[in-house]
Amino acid sequence: MVGSGKRAVERCNLLGVAPFSDSPDFLYRPYLGPAHLSALDQLSAWMRDAGMTTRIDPAGNLVGRFGDGPKSLIIASHIDSVHDAGRYDGPLGIMLGIECIEALRGEALPFAIEVYAFGDEEGSRFPAPMLTSRVVCGQIDATALDVADRAGGSLASALASAGLNKDAFLDARRDPAEFIGYLEAHIEQGPVLEAEGLALGVVTAIAAQKRYEVLVEGVAGHAGTNSMSLRKDALTAAAEMVLAIEAIARSGSGDLVATVGRMSVAPGAPNVVPGKVVFTIDVRAGAEGVRDLAAEAILNAIAEISARRRVAASHNLVHDLPASPCDAALMDLLSEAVAATGQTPRRIVSGAGHDAMVFAKVTSAAMLFIRCKDGVSHNPLESVTTQDAELALDAMVQFIKNIGKRGNV
Amino acid sequence: MVGSGKRAVERCNLLGVAPFSDSPDFLYRPYLGPAHLSALDQLSAWMRDAGMTTRIDPAGNLVGRFGDGPKSLIIASHIDSVHDAGRYDGPLGIMLGIECIEALRGEALPFAIEVYAFGDEEGSRFPAPMLTSRVVCGQIDATALDVADRAGGSLASALASAGLNKDAFLDARRDPAEFIGYLEAHIEQGPVLEAEGLALGVVTAIAAQKRYEVLVEGVAGHAGTNSMSLRKDALTAAAEMVLAIEAIARSGSGDLVATVGRMSVAPGAPNVVPGKVVFTIDVRAGAEGVRDLAAEAILNAIAEISARRRVAASHNLVHDLPASPCDAALMDLLSEAVAATGQTPRRIVSGAGHDAMVFAKVTSAAMLFIRCKDGVSHNPLESVTTQDAELALDAMVQFIKNIGKRGNV
Repeated sequence: MVGSGKRAVERCNLLGVAPFSDSPDFLYRPYLGPAHLSALDQLSAWMRDAGMTTRIDPAGNLVGRFGDGPKSLIIASHIDSVHDAGRYDGPLGIMLGIECIEALRGEALPFAIEVYAFGDEEGSRFPAPMLTSRVVCGQIDATALDVADRAGGSLASALASAGLNKDAFLDARRDPAEFIGYLEAHIEQGPVLEAEGLALGVVTAIAAQKRYEVLVEGVAGHAGTNSMSLRKDALTAAAEMVLAIEAIARSGSGDLVATVGRMSVAPGAPNVVPGKVVFTIDVRAGAEGVRDLAAEAILNAIAEISARRRVAASHNLVHDLPASPCDAALMDLLSEAVAATGQTPRRIVSGAGHDAMVFAKVTSAAMLFIRCKDGVSHNPLESVTTQDAELALDAMVQFIKNIGKRGNV
Repeated sequence: MVGSGKRAVERCNLLGVAPFSDSPDFLYRPYLGPAHLSALDQLSAWMRDAGMTTRIDPAGNLVGRFGDGPKSLIIASHIDSVHDAGRYDGPLGIMLGIECIEALRGEALPFAIEVYAFGDEEGSRFPAPMLTSRVVCGQIDATALDVADRAGGSLASALASAGLNKDAFLDARRDPAEFIGYLEAHIEQGPVLEAEGLALGVVTAIAAQKRYEVLVEGVAGHAGTNSMSLRKDALTAAAEMVLAIEAIARSGSGDLVATVGRMSVAPGAPNVVPGKVVFTIDVRAGAEGVRDLAAEAILNAIAEISARRRVAASHNLVHDLPASPCDAALMDLLSEAVAATGQTPRRIVSGAGHDAMVFAKVTSAAMLFIRCKDGVSHNPLESVTTQDAELALDAMVQFIKNIGKRGNV
């Protein structure tokens, strides 16, 4: 066989239904559930067909190994899914990894390749995302075994029900000295490549993120009896803040985004002027400095608006995640490989988190984005073309060959 | 005794706690509950002390009658309260009615005075407000007996438990030919009089009201991966609409108000661009034309914003209540009476509904507003000064004397 982007897409589709989903109505494949274990069986068979040896590591990750050498290039993504998921977020990167091996059979590479299918990137079962790549990279300790899923079951018992030994969980850790680098292909989950007519993107970093919760307190009052000029309306103040946040993000660089995703209004009656509004702010950018300047401008705008409107505003910083930059040399190699397919190697920041950000802390990491329809993800409408998958496969294979030629592995 | 505004306030305070509240923790006096029936006993005693004859009508309204004549001036307000209420919204108008009788004892008036303590103005138990004044004015039929309270009990069974006969309920109706007019004193429930340093206001009308529900539909997406320029964010669109609504109301006459009191954002996760927002609009003005022009401007602004932002917006008209104008001649008499107390007779629109709007359909109605602290109502912090209550009583007594002198009653 030769490598096939089309087959990679078709295999994702095959895994989109039972027994590879725990729901008959939509795709849901949580970590260590029956659908996950069925998928591991199927993936193992495909890996063996491609000439790989396979094992399930103590964290439930499937690892397919190809070739020889003291060090390995890791090609990876995740096989778990969110509730009511699309079919490509995660699986496509694994399928393309297997297709790379098909394409490289017979090639003499100065390193091994290991394809990882991670078990829990989405936080699909336990609250912490990227659980199983963090184990592999030594970024977790035994307290992780005590986390509970929504049904109250522990990770330890989930491992046991999948035939895994909780006491060996942390043994999934690998010595980073064995890695020569990390490559993850993933659908963009955003609309940028499609809008620019490009199939592929070379990820420069996984965005730095800050998340705030803001409380705006005005004075609730009767909607009929409180004249406009005397109101201290928490919602009109919050509305002005929402627009200021949008304007600040729009005025920044293309990878700066800021979102008010949740808002609650109290008391929340049609005939009562709102007295209290709580909303969240999520601000991300490829560089921490850009993100922090935007966050500062946002907090200044909130202070100015609340003072002018005579309402009180306070905020809490809920999350502060640093940027995870991709490796500059690997980015160049990946750009060359993309260019070799005839595509413009568009550099792009990943606004979403990926297992690559975990590996970026311990080895050189690269990420390839693949255009998806309408930017839709975490949704059954998620869609990718076989043509784009072929281009991605070509770029990945060329990238691997480029690394082999680099000679310093 | 002589009439006393101070005593009127003190009696409201007396009724603010058990057994005149159904809760030990706050004031709650729903229609036909134990606290309501206890309050009727106490009010009856105070009415008899003032020289009135009393009866409970078939709808549970307490009626105190003073003087002789084929026709009556009705002085009224309501004795029920909302949940966690203030002490003056309703009761103060009844207490001042009783104090008017104290003040007028010995006066020869060419008409009787009947003080009504209405049972359900707030919709405190059953969903429809102003239930018991509508019975008196013949604006209700027997289907009202089938409405259910939150516990599922019918009005018929509530009447029975209070010793009233459901079959006689509609007999609470009065012939409007027996009325010479209607006077209701009530706290303003808004901040206008306080802001202008005035104790009293002469109500010109109860505002016309329209209420809409608006649905804004954009496209939900990942907060990290959707660049700002490509978003169709339902919340930023809704925020712009909220500010447009505020601007339109602010640019209108002083009695025009518009409020977005309820808003829900979906899917409502901090890391998801909002795809759907639902909000309410409440728009009121003293004149229907003013209200309708504002509503039209608001709907035009919503259409313009949704088109520009490439989101969909639709709306439903939920309520459409006409204005209830007060009687011009009675307004003049009341203004004269207010001026006689040394106060500027400020004309003011009532943004809130009152039993007066029910009576305005069948007789000449007048309403006197009394300044309240910070415009607060429906809240235990509701507050009114004894000085303002004295001024209100003086104005009411003078108004009644003015009617007597008018000679055409």
